[in-house]
Amino acid sequence: MRKYSAILGNLGNTCDRFCGSYKENPSSIEMLKQAGKLDGISGIELVGTWDIRPDNVQKMKTALDNLNFKCVSIIPDLFADKIWRFGSISAKDSEVRQKAMEYLRTMCGVAEKMDCDIINLWPGQDGYDYLFQGNYLDERNWLVENIAKLAGEFPHLKFALEYKPKEPRTHSYMARMADTLLVCLQTGMDNVGVTIDTGHAFMAGENVSESIILAKQAGNKLFHMHFNDNYKAWDDDMIAGSIHSLEYIEMLYWLDKYGYDGWLSMDQYPYREDAVGAISESINWLKAFDKIMVTNRDKITDTIAEGDAVKTSALMRSILIG
Amino acid sequence: MRKYSAILGNLGNTCDRFCGSYKENPSSIEMLKQAGKLDGISGIELVGTWDIRPDNVQKMKTALDNLNFKCVSIIPDLFADKIWRFGSISAKDSEVRQKAMEYLRTMCGVAEKMDCDIINLWPGQDGYDYLFQGNYLDERNWLVENIAKLAGEFPHLKFALEYKPKEPRTHSYMARMADTLLVCLQTGMDNVGVTIDTGHAFMAGENVSESIILAKQAGNKLFHMHFNDNYKAWDDDMIAGSIHSLEYIEMLYWLDKYGYDGWLSMDQYPYREDAVGAISESINWLKAFDKIMVTNRDKITDTIAEGDAVKTSALMRSILIG
Amino acid sequence: MRKYSAILGNLGNTCDRFCGSYKENPSSIEMLKQAGKLDGISGIELVGTWDIRPDNVQKMKTALDNLNFKCVSIIPDLFADKIWRFGSISAKDSEVRQKAMEYLRTMCGVAEKMDCDIINLWPGQDGYDYLFQGNYLDERNWLVENIAKLAGEFPHLKFALEYKPKEPRTHSYMARMADTLLVCLQTGMDNVGVTIDTGHAFMAGENVSESIILAKQAGNKLFHMHFNDNYKAWDDDMIAGSIHSLEYIEMLYWLDKYGYDGWLSMDQYPYREDAVGAISESINWLKAFDKIMVTNRDKITDTIAEGDAVKTSALMRSILIG
Amino acid sequence: MRKYSAILGNLGNTCDRFCGSYKENPSSIEMLKQAGKLDGISGIELVGTWDIRPDNVQKMKTALDNLNFKCVSIIPDLFADKIWRFGSISAKDSEVRQKAMEYLRTMCGVAEKMDCDIINLWPGQDGYDYLFQGNYLDERNWLVENIAKLAGEFPHLKFALEYKPKEPRTHSYMARMADTLLVCLQTGMDNVGVTIDTGHAFMAGENVSESIILAKQAGNKLFHMHFNDNYKAWDDDMIAGSIHSLEYIEMLYWLDKYGYDGWLSMDQYPYREDAVGAISESINWLKAFDKIMVTNRDKITDTIAEGDAVKTSALMRSILIG
Repeated sequence: MRKYSAILGNLGNTCDRFCGSYKENPSSIEMLKQAGKLDGISGIELVGTWDIRPDNVQKMKTALDNLNFKCVSIIPDLFADKIWRFGSISAKDSEVRQKAMEYLRTMCGVAEKMDCDIINLWPGQDGYDYLFQGNYLDERNWLVENIAKLAGEFPHLKFALEYKPKEPRTHSYMARMADTLLVCLQTGMDNVGVTIDTGHAFMAGENVSESIILAKQAGNKLFHMHFNDNYKAWDDDMIAGSIHSLEYIEMLYWLDKYGYDGWLSMDQYPYREDAVGAISESINWLKAFDKIMVTNRDKITDTIAEGDAVKTSALMRSILIG
Repeated sequence: MRKYSAILGNLGNTCDRFCGSYKENPSSIEMLKQAGKLDGISGIELVGTWDIRPDNVQKMKTALDNLNFKCVSIIPDLFADKIWRFGSISAKDSEVRQKAMEYLRTMCGVAEKMDCDIINLWPGQDGYDYLFQGNYLDERNWLVENIAKLAGEFPHLKFALEYKPKEPRTHSYMARMADTLLVCLQTGMDNVGVTIDTGHAFMAGENVSESIILAKQAGNKLFHMHFNDNYKAWDDDMIAGSIHSLEYIEMLYWLDKYGYDGWLSMDQYPYREDAVGAISESINWLKAFDKIMVTNRDKITDTIAEGDAVKTSALMRSILIG
Repeated sequence: MRKYSAILGNLGNTCDRFCGSYKENPSSIEMLKQAGKLDGISGIELVGTWDIRPDNVQKMKTALDNLNFKCVSIIPDLFADKIWRFGSISAKDSEVRQKAMEYLRTMCGVAEKMDCDIINLWPGQDGYDYLFQGNYLDERNWLVENIAKLAGEFPHLKFALEYKPKEPRTHSYMARMADTLLVCLQTGMDNVGVTIDTGHAFMAGENVSESIILAKQAGNKLFHMHFNDNYKAWDDDMIAGSIHSLEYIEMLYWLDKYGYDGWLSMDQYPYREDAVGAISESINWLKAFDKIMVTNRDKITDTIAEGDAVKTSALMRSILIG
Repeated sequence: MRKYSAILGNLGNTCDRFCGSYKENPSSIEMLKQAGKLDGISGIELVGTWDIRPDNVQKMKTALDNLNFKCVSIIPDLFADKIWRFGSISAKDSEVRQKAMEYLRTMCGVAEKMDCDIINLWPGQDGYDYLFQGNYLDERNWLVENIAKLAGEFPHLKFALEYKPKEPRTHSYMARMADTLLVCLQTGMDNVGVTIDTGHAFMAGENVSESIILAKQAGNKLFHMHFNDNYKAWDDDMIAGSIHSLEYIEMLYWLDKYGYDGWLSMDQYPYREDAVGAISESINWLKAFDKIMVTNRDKITDTIAEGDAVKTSALMRSILIG
C-alpha cells in the first residue's frame, strides 16, 4: 500500500525574486485545514521554524492528530534565514556551523516530540557560486562530519539527505544521488540515507529509476521520496505527471523492486495555481500511474528482460494509452 | 487526412564515430523493399547522391511508382562529403560555395524528374566550431543569397530549410525555428520555408507547438515535418513517442490550427534496432496520438481558453491515460 | 567610446523564493548614492513604479542630474505586481492587457520627462508554464499588436524588447534573439528593437556574437545591452567576465562590426555580494576585455578570415593570457 | 613535474555518423611518427585491437621505446566492435559478458608486456537507450562483479574507470564521478579507480575541481586524467582551453591539493583540424594555465579561504589577464 503525504508549506504563499507574493499568507493551522481537503494523504511534512518550533510543538501535534495525519518528516530551515547565506553545516565560519548544529539539534528534539521518524535535510545554502570560492575539501569534510555527529546523537531518527544540483546556490554540495550516497557512506551511520526529490533528480539529468537502484546497491539508502515535475532544466516544482509520464511509471516499478515502503510525498511550488487543486492533481496522476504499473508489472518485467527497443516502445504505448 | 512518409536511409546501415557499422549495408532498392513493409506510409524521402542521382533517377522513379510511393522530398547531401567539412553554401571558400550551388541545381533537376515538390535543405556543415572562427556576417549573408538564388531558379520547387542547433558542427547557422524564419524572410522568396524536425526542435529547447505558430505568423512558412524523439539534449533520433507524449498530442492540435496539410515524415536513426520495427512504432504512436487529439479537440480548445493549470493537468491525464 | 551604465535596482535588496531578504532595503535615492561610487558609469536605468513614477519623476530627474547621470532607460514593472501573473500585454484577460497598456503609457510619459530615450520592455510574465495552457496564436498576436500600438503612440521613444527563455514563467513568449526580431518585424515599427541581456542569451544557448549579427541583418535592431554572466543553464546574474572571457572579447569585436554605439549596461543580481563591488567588477572585466579586443582587432579579423581552428586557438591564448 | 601524454588515435582519421571520413587513414606506426612531433609529451595511450594486440605488441613496444615514450595506458576497445552494441561486461547476454572478459584479460596481458600500469576502462556501450530497457539492478551488479574479478586477476595493474554520461548510448552506467566512485567502492579493490575526462565531466555538469576532491575523499581514487574542452552540452572533444580557462586553472590547483602525480593526457577528436596542431594547442594551453596557477598559488589559497565573490572575481581577472 502506497502512503501519500504532502509538505505543508506547499499550501501557503508563493513568491519569486521578481514578485514578492503571488497569493495570501495563511498560517500553518490554516494550511493544515487546507491539507485536510487533499484526498488520499495520511501524512504531512513540516518545515522547521515556519511550521514547527519548540513553542508550538504541542499545538501542532494536536492539530495533526485531529486530522489523523502522521508527521512524516521535519524539514529544518537551513535556507530561509540569511544567516545561512554562505552555508550552514559546511559554512567557512565555524560559528555559523555551530549555530546550524544547535538549530538542528533543536529540530531533532521537536521531531521526537512529534513522533516523527525522519529529518529531511536539505542544506540548500551549502555550496558555492563562483569558481575559486569554495574550499571543496574542508567544506565537504565539515558537511560529512556534522551529519555524522548529528546522526550519532539522535540514533532513533533517520536523516534523509535531499540533494539538488543548484538553487539557491549555483552549485550545491549535495548535488546528485551518487555524491549524496558517498556522503552517507562517509558518515558511517546506518541512519543516514537519501531523499529523492523527483524534480531535483530530473534537473540533475538523472533517470530516477536508476537512482533508486544506486541507493539500493549502496545499502538500501532510499529513505524518502518527494514528487513534482519539471522540464528537466530547472526545479519548476510543477504537478507531478503533467509533463512526464513513462518516467513515473518506470519509477514506481523500480520502487517496488527496491522494496521501498516509505512515503510518496508531494512537494510542489504552485506559484500561480490553486494549491489544493495542484497537489491533488499530483496524487491523481501518481495513483493512475501506479494502477497502470501494477496491472502491467509482469509484462514490464518480461520486456525489460528482453531489452528490445521496438518491443519496449510497443509496451510503453500499450500501457500508457492502451 | 494525415499523410505519412519516411526517409529511405533510415532503413539502412547505422554508425557513430566509435563504431563504423552496426548493421549491414543495403542498397537503395533493397531499402525500398523494406519501406514497402511500413504500414501506412505513402511517400518516401530520398537523400541526394546516396539514393538518387541523375544516373539512377529513372530507375528510382519506376521503383517508387511500383510501390505507389510519392517522392516526398529530395534531401541533397550537404553533409556526408568531406568537401563540405567547413560549410557548403556559406563556406568561406568561394569555390566550395560554387560547387555546392552546382550540386544543388543538379538535385533540383532530379527532383523535377521525380515529380517531387520539396527540396529539404539541411546544410549540416554550415556553421562553426570554435569562437573567433566564423565570420557570422559574411557567411550568413552567403547563406541567404544562395538560397534566394536557388529558389529563384527553381520557382516550382519548395525549399524547406531544416534547422538544427548543432551536430556535426558545434554551431549551425540555421539553428532554430525563428532564425530560420529570418533566413526565409531575408530571401524574399515565397517558395522558401521551414522543415521542423521534432528532435532538432526539442534539442533546441523549443516547444514545437509554439514553433508551428511562429511559422504561421511569419507567413505560413511550415513546409515539412520530420518526426523522431529524444531526451531534449541531443539528436538521439529515437522512436517518436517513446519518450514524450503530451508534446506530440499538443503538436498535432496546433498543426491543425495552422492548417498544415503537408507530410508527417519519419526521420529516425535506429542505431541498434530493427529499422522497419522502429519506424513502424513511430507511425503507431503518431496515429494513436492523432486519434486522441481528434477525439478531444473541443475539450482541448476549451481548456486552453481557460489557461487554468489545474484543469489543464486534469485534461491531460484524462486524454492521455483515460 | 564605450558608454557604461547600470540598473539602479542592482544596488538594492535581494531575495529568492526561499530567502525573503539577503540584504537591507535601501530607497531609490540611497541606491543612487551608491551608484555614484561606481567608477566609470555615466548612465542609470530605472525600474518603473519602484524607482520612478509620475509622483517622483521630478525628484529623480534632479537626483540623476546632480550625479551627472543620464537616464538610460525606463524598465516598466511588468513582473513584480501579481496582477501580471498570467501575462501583461499578452494576457488572456483583455482587462489585464488594457491595464498593462495604460501602465506602459504612463511609463512612456515618465520616460519623456526624464529625457530618456529607451523603454526597456521585459514582459517576464508573458508566456506559459504548462503544455495545453497557452494560446500561442492569439497571445503572440496580442503581444505584437500591443507593442506596435505603443510604438506608434510614442514615436520618439525606442522600444527595446528584452528576451529571456524562462523565469518567472517556464516559457516566455520573447525567448530568444531571433523570435524577438520576428516580433520587431511584425510590428512594422522602426522604433522597436531588441535588448540583449548577455546572461539571458547564454541561457538560451546563444552565441551572443552571432545574435548581434542576427540583429544587424534584421535591420539594425540592436537597441540596448545588459551585461552579466552565468553558467549557461540559468539566469544566475553574476559578475560579467567571472565565468566566461573569450565570449565577451568576441562580443565586443562584433559590437564594433555592427556599429553599435549604445550603452553597455550592468544588470546583475548580487544575492550575497556587496553590490558596488560586484557591479564594479563587471565594469573592470569589460574594460579589460575591450582593451584586449581593440589592441588585437586586426589579428582577430585576419584569424577569422582564415577560420583555421588551430590558429584560432593560438590567437585566443595569445590575446587572453599573453 | 607534470607528465603530459596523448592518445595515439587522436592523430588518426575522424568521422561522424554523417561523414564517414574527414581525413586519411594512417597506420598506428604512422601515427606514432606524428606523435613524435608533439612537443613536451613523454607518454602514449594505445587503444586495444586498433593500436595494440598480442600479435603486434613487440613491434609497438620497440616503436614506443625508440621514441622514448612510456605506454601510459591501454584502452581496451569495448566500443567499436558491434558485438558490444548492447553492452560488454554488463550486457544482458552472458556470452557477450564472457567474451568481454576474455578480451579484457587479453588486453591486460598486453599491458603487462608493454610495461603499462593502467587499463583505462571506458565501457561506452554499457548502458541503455530507452526507458524500460535496462535492468539497472542486474546490469549494474554485473558491471561491478566483472570489474572486481578482473582487478583481482591482475593485481599489479590499475583499472581506471572512465565515466561519461552518454554517447554512444543515451545513458551510460558509469556516468559521473560519484556513481563511478560507488562502483570502485563496491568492487572492494584498491586497484580500481577513476579517469576524469574533463570533457565528459563538463558534459555531466560537473565542476571538475570538486570531482577531484570527491575522488580524494573516496580514498584517493583519481588514477588518470584526459583533457579536452567542449561547450558543456556534448562531448565535442575540442582543444583544451579553447573555450574554458578559469576552470582549468582551478583544476590544476586542486590536482596539486589532491597530490595527483599521474599523467595529464590529451584526448581530443580533431574532426576537421590538423591533429598535431590541435593536440599541441591543448598542451600549450595547459602549460600556460599551470604557470599561472603555480605563480599565484598562495593568492588563490588566500582568496578561497575568504570566499568573498568580489575579491574572487578580482583575483581571477588578475591571474587570467593580468
